[in-house]
Amino acid sequence: MRLLLLNPNTTEALTERMASVARGIAAETTVIDAITAPRGLPYIATRAEAVIGGAIALEMLADLSAPYDAVIMAAFGDPALNAARELLSVPVVGLAEASILTACMLGRRFSIVTFSANLAPWFEECVAANGMGGRLASLRVARQAFSDIDLVQAEMTAALVEAATLAAREDGAEVIILGGAPLAGLARRVAPLLPVPVIDSVEAATRMAETLALLKPRKAEIGSFRLPDGKPTVGLPAALASLLGGGG
Amino acid sequence: MRLLLLNPNTTEALTERMASVARGIAAETTVIDAITAPRGLPYIATRAEAVIGGAIALEMLADLSAPYDAVIMAAFGDPALNAARELLSVPVVGLAEASILTACMLGRRFSIVTFSANLAPWFEECVAANGMGGRLASLRVARQAFSDIDLVQAEMTAALVEAATLAAREDGAEVIILGGAPLAGLARRVAPLLPVPVIDSVEAATRMAETLALLKPRKAEIGSFRLPDGKPTVGLPAALASLLGGGG
Amino acid sequence: MRLLLLNPNTTEALTERMASVARGIAAETTVIDAITAPRGLPYIATRAEAVIGGAIALEMLADLSAPYDAVIMAAFGDPALNAARELLSVPVVGLAEASILTACMLGRRFSIVTFSANLAPWFEECVAANGMGGRLASLRVARQAFSDIDLVQAEMTAALVEAATLAAREDGAEVIILGGAPLAGLARRVAPLLPVPVIDSVEAATRMAETLALLKPRKAEIGSFRLPDGKPTVGLPAALASLLGGGG
Amino acid sequence: MRLLLLNPNTTEALTERMASVARGIAAETTVIDAITAPRGLPYIATRAEAVIGGAIALEMLADLSAPYDAVIMAAFGDPALNAARELLSVPVVGLAEASILTACMLGRRFSIVTFSANLAPWFEECVAANGMGGRLASLRVARQAFSDIDLVQAEMTAALVEAATLAAREDGAEVIILGGAPLAGLARRVAPLLPVPVIDSVEAATRMAETLALLKPRKAEIGSFRLPDGKPTVGLPAALASLLGGGG
Amino acid sequence: MRLLLLNPNTTEALTERMASVARGIAAETTVIDAITAPRGLPYIATRAEAVIGGAIALEMLADLSAPYDAVIMAAFGDPALNAARELLSVPVVGLAEASILTACMLGRRFSIVTFSANLAPWFEECVAANGMGGRLASLRVARQAFSDIDLVQAEMTAALVEAATLAAREDGAEVIILGGAPLAGLARRVAPLLPVPVIDSVEAATRMAETLALLKPRKAEIGSFRLPDGKPTVGLPAALASLLGGGG
Amino acid sequence: MRLLLLNPNTTEALTERMASVARGIAAETTVIDAITAPRGLPYIATRAEAVIGGAIALEMLADLSAPYDAVIMAAFGDPALNAARELLSVPVVGLAEASILTACMLGRRFSIVTFSANLAPWFEECVAANGMGGRLASLRVARQAFSDIDLVQAEMTAALVEAATLAAREDGAEVIILGGAPLAGLARRVAPLLPVPVIDSVEAATRMAETLALLKPRKAEIGSFRLPDGKPTVGLPAALASLLGGGG
Repeated sequence: MRLLLLNPNTTEALTERMASVARGIAAETTVIDAITAPRGLPYIATRAEAVIGGAIALEMLADLSAPYDAVIMAAFGDPALNAARELLSVPVVGLAEASILTACMLGRRFSIVTFSANLAPWFEECVAANGMGGRLASLRVARQAFSDIDLVQAEMTAALVEAATLAAREDGAEVIILGGAPLAGLARRVAPLLPVPVIDSVEAATRMAETLALLKPRKAEIGSFRLPDGKPTVGLPAALASLLGGGG
Repeated sequence: MRLLLLNPNTTEALTERMASVARGIAAETTVIDAITAPRGLPYIATRAEAVIGGAIALEMLADLSAPYDAVIMAAFGDPALNAARELLSVPVVGLAEASILTACMLGRRFSIVTFSANLAPWFEECVAANGMGGRLASLRVARQAFSDIDLVQAEMTAALVEAATLAAREDGAEVIILGGAPLAGLARRVAPLLPVPVIDSVEAATRMAETLALLKPRKAEIGSFRLPDGKPTVGLPAALASLLGGGG
Repeated sequence: MRLLLLNPNTTEALTERMASVARGIAAETTVIDAITAPRGLPYIATRAEAVIGGAIALEMLADLSAPYDAVIMAAFGDPALNAARELLSVPVVGLAEASILTACMLGRRFSIVTFSANLAPWFEECVAANGMGGRLASLRVARQAFSDIDLVQAEMTAALVEAATLAAREDGAEVIILGGAPLAGLARRVAPLLPVPVIDSVEAATRMAETLALLKPRKAEIGSFRLPDGKPTVGLPAALASLLGGGG
Repeated sequence: MRLLLLNPNTTEALTERMASVARGIAAETTVIDAITAPRGLPYIATRAEAVIGGAIALEMLADLSAPYDAVIMAAFGDPALNAARELLSVPVVGLAEASILTACMLGRRFSIVTFSANLAPWFEECVAANGMGGRLASLRVARQAFSDIDLVQAEMTAALVEAATLAAREDGAEVIILGGAPLAGLARRVAPLLPVPVIDSVEAATRMAETLALLKPRKAEIGSFRLPDGKPTVGLPAALASLLGGGG
Repeated sequence: MRLLLLNPNTTEALTERMASVARGIAAETTVIDAITAPRGLPYIATRAEAVIGGAIALEMLADLSAPYDAVIMAAFGDPALNAARELLSVPVVGLAEASILTACMLGRRFSIVTFSANLAPWFEECVAANGMGGRLASLRVARQAFSDIDLVQAEMTAALVEAATLAAREDGAEVIILGGAPLAGLARRVAPLLPVPVIDSVEAATRMAETLALLKPRKAEIGSFRLPDGKPTVGLPAALASLLGGGG
Repeated sequence: MRLLLLNPNTTEALTERMASVARGIAAETTVIDAITAPRGLPYIATRAEAVIGGAIALEMLADLSAPYDAVIMAAFGDPALNAARELLSVPVVGLAEASILTACMLGRRFSIVTFSANLAPWFEECVAANGMGGRLASLRVARQAFSDIDLVQAEMTAALVEAATLAAREDGAEVIILGGAPLAGLARRVAPLLPVPVIDSVEAATRMAETLALLKPRKAEIGSFRLPDGKPTVGLPAALASLLGGGG
């Protein structure tokens, strides 16, 4: 099986970190290719940035030359997730959605713990868009600054553990989701320090992508996830224009 | 007062039609500038197209040289509406949101009547995202094809009236919203044919834009609609890069 | 255009205050007549008082001799708002509903800040009845007493600003609504002191009334907002009896 | 025990019918006094009529000379129910609320079957206001006209049975509520003809009133159901003025 | 009338306590038989225990030799309540459901106050399963340990009153439900100490059982509460096998 | 990895069918043991049967001698799923929950298609209990009888395909779940006949069980899924008594 991990951010180090976590949990026979946005933002954190990063992600998908069995949209918040599902014939999973669905099997209510207050509203809208607002215990932000997106784990682990512990003890969270691509790989390290299960979003998404690939669901022929009707476009990159034009 | 009507689609004729309707209801002292997407799709109809058109709309906003008192995101479905609200200091309204809110003052439940089945899921998600799912009586699509996006009104008026009448008589709609930019200007013509009030989305949005401009709400300093922190970007158009970089 | 601002309370000073705010934001060509309840309560604050004041408001509407293009039910909490919509052929707006809908265009979640704990449950039911409970961040009451309903602004401005600030900083409100007719006109004065936009309910309602009047929606012929069937009544004031009897 | 059955309509025959049904199910030791609105409408059927009838009901409550252990607001739709709860120190129940709560113990979803399409929107809002929208299977109106409110049962029984049967067989109703005071006493007659349990709203309300009277709940000292603060009023009937003025 | 109070726990003292409270509020002509689970748990407190106790309760119902007019499933949390409704032809009520429905007639929002944190999640799921999550103000646990399930009242009354008072004063509860069979009989004693009404779950359930018995609802012939189709079983107690086999 | 597939029904043929499907999708290194209820019902179809089967399932779990990495509760409807999660230290998944969560990644709304009208209410409550009611497009029952639970696929495939097609074409389902253990293995055969993706509940559950086992979530130490406090019991099977008594 061949999976694509698509980082819609421009930070290569994040891509490497996520690919490494994904490969660590994937089946031995699963090959995971990881690509990084060639342009855009170092780290998507707002709705505006998600729109821009999402559009770039669609261009990246249009540019693919090799086929994949499934795609991981590797940014927590899942930019352009449903858009990608329209355009592709293979399953697409998002870090946030995969984490939320996994959490539902481990407890009644989950909290998302993250590293920047900027991300909280976007993540909250993401939970609501999944129809899961009723199972969100809280959204907690670690109380500590970080100097660089790639140093989040190095600098903030203690603060994240503290926030997760408060979510479990005070907010009624029965599961913790570590939200944000920079936290990939942290869950296993902090699990022994927390009183409830903790989910790594890249691990969850990788397994969900493998699962959907194995189920080999057919591309919808009707409904909102069928291939959009082809349309002429103006001024878009050639591959994307071709995909939207019915060339996909 | 100076309003911007931004059409994220590339169809100039639609822009003209909407601008004309907007100018027809705006105060005499209101100046309305209308701009058309320089690239993208002739008519956004799916989630993927909304992501692409939304990103282009943000570029168009970054490119503005003159200040406006408010902006109308002139596509029903409201691509990048909240994203634009983050980036701008003046109010931004969307056709769908403005119509939905207006409908709430004229009846308990409303139906959206539109001209293409492709649009229905996107519009339905738009209602839900506004937290208004409980007041949606139905989403009805006129049963007739159209040959060109600019001929929708010419070819489909009877079918739209029929769908709206069914929405009122069978689905319990107490208000009708004509959904989709190509329907701008149609409401006043068909109002006498319908048993309940009918809303023109461009009229509603124009008035809402004027209203917000008059209220002169301050730009949020905190919360998810404050200006995002400036960030370095890679490979984005210069004006957009400047806006995201804190130059806005 | 001719609007009626109907105060279902007996306090003339409140009517004057509201009419002044309404005239301040209305178009120059809009004439606003303001009337005060001839009997009833100085200030509606509970469900029982709203029923009584609402019935009196309907009598006042039945007594009108001149036609209006729209009516403002000028008590936050919107007593008899939908009842008035049944009986009249022109649009009717309420202070609370207009504020809530306006707030939805300026942020995801709003708080209502008011001056008396007595009002809170009524306002909360009003938000829920509009189907907007999911977007209410909080309902905050200023912590300070007032000596007279007409002195609320004079005595409580600092306390109201404090409550609004807490709503924004602690409850996640992205917009503030100042709830209650006695607060009319306060929003513009306190806006510079608050970190998020603030809405004046009379300003919002005035603009919504003008908008609906301009849209000239037809009176519903079917559904729950059509004119009720005429009925004989017993012992009601003549004008109201006539209106209910099919004389309207 | 002494109960008051208060009919906010002016139709004496309805009062008699309801009182008879109430006495049929009440304990032998329960005395039921029944009063009819001295002015107002023969039969409340719209929101406007409910506001007027509700205000008259409050006047009737203010006029009471004898104490009661509980009050039945005897109009389906429950006009002024929560308003009455504020003003009185004893429990108050409504026909619709009592029926809905009773239905919840007999099935997952209930339908309300009634005799006039005019009533449907009001009843639906009543279910929603009780937070029970999720358990409403449908609201069905019997397809047949009636010549006089007092002849509803005589003329419409077959049509009501047909509507109730369709509600059970096609809408998934597991319980039927016969909605509307004119249907009092009908449930026991039609029960053998229906495939699911059927509730008489006056029977349900009478038993709920007795139950609350036996529980002897204390009048709330805090919260929205405590006695409102006394206020001066203008031009209200003396007894009501006294009740609102703190004389109650 | 003859009611059965079925305690699915093995603690006889609890059965006695509940039977005594039930007999105190029931009509003089009502006979109440009380039975205790012959095996199982002393006090159900978790989902696993509710499954086990629920299955035992069904066996107890299958073993009944005398007919009853209604059954009280006498454990707060209502194990196997809907299951029992399927199998029996007479009404069945549960302590939690009856309390919740009663509370709805006394205030907008209620709190459940209980004696063990273990019970809270189960009770919360019970409220949600009744579709009443929107009216739950809070679930409060008294802060004090107890030495024996039969001594809960003796040891914890002050702590329960404190928790109930906080629920009313800080959480907005307008009614208090004392949750848990061991609290039967406590409400009347503490009512004078609380600022809002308080409900005894056994009193509420007893009255609801009598009410449903008087309404004599017919057993559903269709829908999910009709008698299940008879089936062969393996290794179940003879009476239960007979009931499930169509012998009931 | 070692998984347990626990069939709470007594029909061995169903166990074999499910085990075969599970082994077909599991990793080569995953061992799947399958056990059948030694007593109970041939096929759980109602709430009462789910309580009985659920209690038997807990006894079966208490009787296990070997450790497993995860458990599949192999009945659609998920009897005792959360109860089992309390008692075990390893993950437990249910057929319905796993299917629902998988469906959420393949479309906005899903329909459950099943073979007996008896199952529909139970399945609908199961969707609601997962908080997913908003994403259920419909619950469709194939219109054809079956002669034996083990012949459901042989006799009903065409009818199930027809129901699934209607769900997609008329109800708006974007994904189909084949609900019910007897349908295990059918999805792959009918997938080419359907216009949208279709999910096999045993395949979905098997993959979810493997995923959770790989994530190795720690057993909750706090919250409602921690091990219940040990308690003395009366008359329960020894192993279950030991598990509940703190011996687990």
